Amino acid sequence: MSKLRVAIVGASGYSGSVAARLVAAHDRLALAFATSDKLAGASVAVHLGTVLDDRQIFLPNAAALDRADACDAVILATAADISMRLVPEFGVRGKQVIDLSGAFRLDAEAYPRWYGFEHAAPDWLKRTHYGLPELFGSPPAGSIVANPGCYPTAALLALAPLLRDKLIEAKGIVIDAKSGVTGAGRQSGDAYSFAEVADDLHAYRLLTHQHTPEITRGLARTGEPRPSSDVQVTFTAHLLPLKRGLLATCYARPRSGADAKRVADCLAEAYAHTAFVRAVPPEQVMLKRVVGTNMAHVGATANPDVVVAIGALDNLLKGASGQAIQSLNAMNGWPETTGLDALQRISP
Amino acid sequence: MSKLRVAIVGASGYSGSVAARLVAAHDRLALAFATSDKLAGASVAVHLGTVLDDRQIFLPNAAALDRADACDAVILATAADISMRLVPEFGVRGKQVIDLSGAFRLDAEAYPRWYGFEHAAPDWLKRTHYGLPELFGSPPAGSIVANPGCYPTAALLALAPLLRDKLIEAKGIVIDAKSGVTGAGRQSGDAYSFAEVADDLHAYRLLTHQHTPEITRGLARTGEPRPSSDVQVTFTAHLLPLKRGLLATCYARPRSGADAKRVADCLAEAYAHTAFVRAVPPEQVMLKRVVGTNMAHVGATANPDVVVAIGALDNLLKGASGQAIQSLNAMNGWPETTGLDALQRISP
Amino acid sequence: MSKLRVAIVGASGYSGSVAARLVAAHDRLALAFATSDKLAGASVAVHLGTVLDDRQIFLPNAAALDRADACDAVILATAADISMRLVPEFGVRGKQVIDLSGAFRLDAEAYPRWYGFEHAAPDWLKRTHYGLPELFGSPPAGSIVANPGCYPTAALLALAPLLRDKLIEAKGIVIDAKSGVTGAGRQSGDAYSFAEVADDLHAYRLLTHQHTPEITRGLARTGEPRPSSDVQVTFTAHLLPLKRGLLATCYARPRSGADAKRVADCLAEAYAHTAFVRAVPPEQVMLKRVVGTNMAHVGATANPDVVVAIGALDNLLKGASGQAIQSLNAMNGWPETTGLDALQRISP
Amino acid sequence: MSKLRVAIVGASGYSGSVAARLVAAHDRLALAFATSDKLAGASVAVHLGTVLDDRQIFLPNAAALDRADACDAVILATAADISMRLVPEFGVRGKQVIDLSGAFRLDAEAYPRWYGFEHAAPDWLKRTHYGLPELFGSPPAGSIVANPGCYPTAALLALAPLLRDKLIEAKGIVIDAKSGVTGAGRQSGDAYSFAEVADDLHAYRLLTHQHTPEITRGLARTGEPRPSSDVQVTFTAHLLPLKRGLLATCYARPRSGADAKRVADCLAEAYAHTAFVRAVPPEQVMLKRVVGTNMAHVGATANPDVVVAIGALDNLLKGASGQAIQSLNAMNGWPETTGLDALQRISP
Repeated sequence: MSKLRVAIVGASGYSGSVAARLVAAHDRLALAFATSDKLAGASVAVHLGTVLDDRQIFLPNAAALDRADACDAVILATAADISMRLVPEFGVRGKQVIDLSGAFRLDAEAYPRWYGFEHAAPDWLKRTHYGLPELFGSPPAGSIVANPGCYPTAALLALAPLLRDKLIEAKGIVIDAKSGVTGAGRQSGDAYSFAEVADDLHAYRLLTHQHTPEITRGLARTGEPRPSSDVQVTFTAHLLPLKRGLLATCYARPRSGADAKRVADCLAEAYAHTAFVRAVPPEQVMLKRVVGTNMAHVGATANPDVVVAIGALDNLLKGASGQAIQSLNAMNGWPETTGLDALQRISP
Repeated sequence: MSKLRVAIVGASGYSGSVAARLVAAHDRLALAFATSDKLAGASVAVHLGTVLDDRQIFLPNAAALDRADACDAVILATAADISMRLVPEFGVRGKQVIDLSGAFRLDAEAYPRWYGFEHAAPDWLKRTHYGLPELFGSPPAGSIVANPGCYPTAALLALAPLLRDKLIEAKGIVIDAKSGVTGAGRQSGDAYSFAEVADDLHAYRLLTHQHTPEITRGLARTGEPRPSSDVQVTFTAHLLPLKRGLLATCYARPRSGADAKRVADCLAEAYAHTAFVRAVPPEQVMLKRVVGTNMAHVGATANPDVVVAIGALDNLLKGASGQAIQSLNAMNGWPETTGLDALQRISP
Repeated sequence: MSKLRVAIVGASGYSGSVAARLVAAHDRLALAFATSDKLAGASVAVHLGTVLDDRQIFLPNAAALDRADACDAVILATAADISMRLVPEFGVRGKQVIDLSGAFRLDAEAYPRWYGFEHAAPDWLKRTHYGLPELFGSPPAGSIVANPGCYPTAALLALAPLLRDKLIEAKGIVIDAKSGVTGAGRQSGDAYSFAEVADDLHAYRLLTHQHTPEITRGLARTGEPRPSSDVQVTFTAHLLPLKRGLLATCYARPRSGADAKRVADCLAEAYAHTAFVRAVPPEQVMLKRVVGTNMAHVGATANPDVVVAIGALDNLLKGASGQAIQSLNAMNGWPETTGLDALQRISP
Repeated sequence: MSKLRVAIVGASGYSGSVAARLVAAHDRLALAFATSDKLAGASVAVHLGTVLDDRQIFLPNAAALDRADACDAVILATAADISMRLVPEFGVRGKQVIDLSGAFRLDAEAYPRWYGFEHAAPDWLKRTHYGLPELFGSPPAGSIVANPGCYPTAALLALAPLLRDKLIEAKGIVIDAKSGVTGAGRQSGDAYSFAEVADDLHAYRLLTHQHTPEITRGLARTGEPRPSSDVQVTFTAHLLPLKRGLLATCYARPRSGADAKRVADCLAEAYAHTAFVRAVPPEQVMLKRVVGTNMAHVGATANPDVVVAIGALDNLLKGASGQAIQSLNAMNGWPETTGLDALQRISP
């Protein structure tokens, strides 16, 4: 059985290096090459820390397109403005493309406000599939995959079934989310130094975080589609003093009939037949039960004033590179769990 | 100058031991005695870790009342059901009393639902002062002080001025709070073991936390008093993997005229002349800037859909024993910062 | 291809649950059953947090022997006194046995002093193989495997090649080791609570730790065997405020010819052809590069006064259950890395 | 009572900012000015996080000498090469000078090897007092104080009484030390980012750390002075994933008569009459009992092969700025604990 050859562009960042490890350990995938300007020339095996042949080395990013013939698929772990240019290049060459950035997750008109640039490839936006399989199914043939953001994955998994089943209002939703530092990507500088982050907690990008329109759009396309303007979400991100893991606590106004049992049942039914999402009591939605795995846990409860729904996942796996592998499995007709079921929970 | 003799009942718990350290280091206070069944007979100085005479030892809790003559004031760091009985005993003996539990913070009728017992001293409830000085002033002569809970202190400091100035609606308030493990008091058992708490985050006592009615009541008594039923708050507590520090992110519906500038100005003005509350931009409300000190930081912003107000403090100081010393200073006519201005921020 | 059926006895502890996860994810192994008095009746899949059939439940420990027919191999994650009794029982039934406790790692006469009991099965001690494959090879047919302790694995991997190649003296060795809290097994009680362990560090069982004679014996059997009395080791364990990971910093007196280059080369050559031990510069022996994987990293340097050798590993994988799977692979003639090469480093 | 006016040069680093907080809270000291190129123009009170007048601002470092008239004493929290030049400048102006760097801790000939520069003020080296009061007494009139390094303070407090009382050999001493990240000073860059430091441990500057000759020299001057060449120390530093706290585990060869009781008694007697050093059983030497305070805890035990002595302290207080205040108190004839007895242990 020959393996699908996968290239990773931007493999020294957190999600890129996790993607490379997942590819290296996947029975059906082979690492075609990995690029990183920072690590160009260094051993991939040493950097990944895995049991691999030591001879493969990181290429510079600029070599990625030149080497496109050497791969069947590519995972882009690059900044949004770079992905915006690379996705069409790999797309026209007929490669399977999964983009981990936000460059293909919104409608074109949203980019100037939320990402600070005009979208350079609006026609490619129409060919992208938003790769959250439990809510939006498998990618159609020939599509490229916009891999969802970490916060949107957690929030949408917790809220979308409740909105679809008309248990919550689409307006007045509050999402209070907390993420470990790898969610921000590899950063240097004082703000991410140990002595600044440890034992701290604070909110960031208040009311301006670019995942807000992504969540709104995802909710608008849930159940009977509606215009994004019919959905109103307040989203807050906090920086947690831990490496991996993201928890989103969501508040919504109940619609008639919503009570504690019905909202819990709604989530249980929505995910009963999925491999990677498990509905649990909301106080048991815990980082420690999902970090290190591709699982998301969700739970909900309600009283007459409010529905509370909570989602948790590992921001580098189900919130990024693990979900990318799910999509790659789906695009190639393999079982969804291939290469993901040996991942081990970190908490003992 | 003779010192006020202060007894600490329940001095082996987290807030009790911090109270004892504050008394020991305070120029106007002397530690009359400290009780703890767990540490009875052990050296107070060794346990507190301070520069003190080694001869003082912990007494058993049962000795507290017998020794009442030896103290002028008492800080009760006991469970609510025990405080409910001890407060009147020390009160009738004419002692200055500060109770760190929830036993005297609510109206009598709220206790069965939120604390699981009928209140045994409802007449004493009327003589208590809710000791949050920046919002409710100094304790009247002869009153006993119900020291506020850690979550209510942070939430009320962030929200009360906004409600008083009619910038937010009193209904539909969401408070998403996160606290380090000492907020739960000294606990043993698996759930609080290092391997269970480290690198984790989860919500607890969802929709049933006993600080909910305390916050509601505090807001109802802000500005023009209104019935508690006119205020509606959803409160969620999360357990953070750190020892000390509490951050409350609060969401409210804006009233007309509320915008980012007005809500920020409202907090700045409210606390301009206080020693222990500082208004800062909301993304700069950070645990690391307050932990180890008696300071609370608050900040707010808004858009047309929502007002976000954030408060942070050290749950053992401004959220418990530090605030108790503020009240004790006020009761004795000393400057509010006495014994609290040498506290040092932990984050370097 | 039928799978080898493996039972785990004591599967709710840290090393037991990691062993169960490794078995569940291993292509050639099936989880026959898992026992735990604490979790008896609970879902194994839910507890393990993996992608598994939810129907399998934990059995009580007492059921293990009765169900022996249902397994081909057993991993004992039980206390030493229990393993001492169970190993012979499974051994006489012809099962492959791997014992994670210290019950079969020393000579019989050492047990009263270091473990506090007379050994009840001294004849079985002779049939055990000390399962540290990189130093002591594969288990002979019919042997049972005494899986090494976490500290001895790290210390022996760092020191044994240096002693064998006559670069260090056998006396006057100092091993200063530091381990995350899971090294102590699942503990409750104040001493292991988050608030006691976080931000702390201290030594424990000073000069009395039971891993001391295990290290001494391992060194004595390295190279040309010598009596244990010719080896003298001082061993100190410290409790680190993190969950997983162990680092041993070892100091020895140099023999003639030992210098920085020779000691580094010695380790590089010793492990050049191993899958799970990698020699690196000693300042690059870091917990973050091994935790989550079955790798051990070792490094050494020297000056005329001292040889310093450092070893690091994940105490639950290469220091416990991962190494057990290595032995199980060897006993069954499978590639050594089977079921271990998909493990992912935790640090991103 | 007029206060002594103290300037802090380099007040944005970790030890400088702690020094500034201690001065601000000290009854006999006033903060004359604080300099920092990084924070020039910013509010000192906001940066320190204390209850202070908001009007004082940071000056640029270059202004320090110009403003010398405004201070009676200066604490230099500058790099060694800068302190080497500033100490004489403030010295000739008759100021009380305490230097936190290593610029005046060694003999002149040691600087090229350990600090990489020729010493520019060797005559001033003779006028310095090594400011470790419990071992070397109070500074003579007119001396300047070289404040000891954090590692040397812990190691010398643990070892010096044992060497002085002839319980250990002066050669073959091993010091295995572990420190939180603030010990390295304020650093940016990947190596000190949260994601790199959290959950990690590794050794650094192996066999080349500049605190090695400082410890050797301190031991040589203990008891009957001997040449530094008669003392031989191996020193290893490890980076701990926590902010504050340092623990040094020291190993030495016993001399005749050394046993567990005698070494414990030796430390107990040595520090019986000190305010800031407490002898405890060696397994109770714990970071959590000293961090946040100016206390050092030490403990020792022995068997026929080895003496183990352990010391712990807060690297920013007893290991840096707290000890500086001790010296300043001594130079001015105030009680040693002035301004240091209100510090509160961080661990609850």
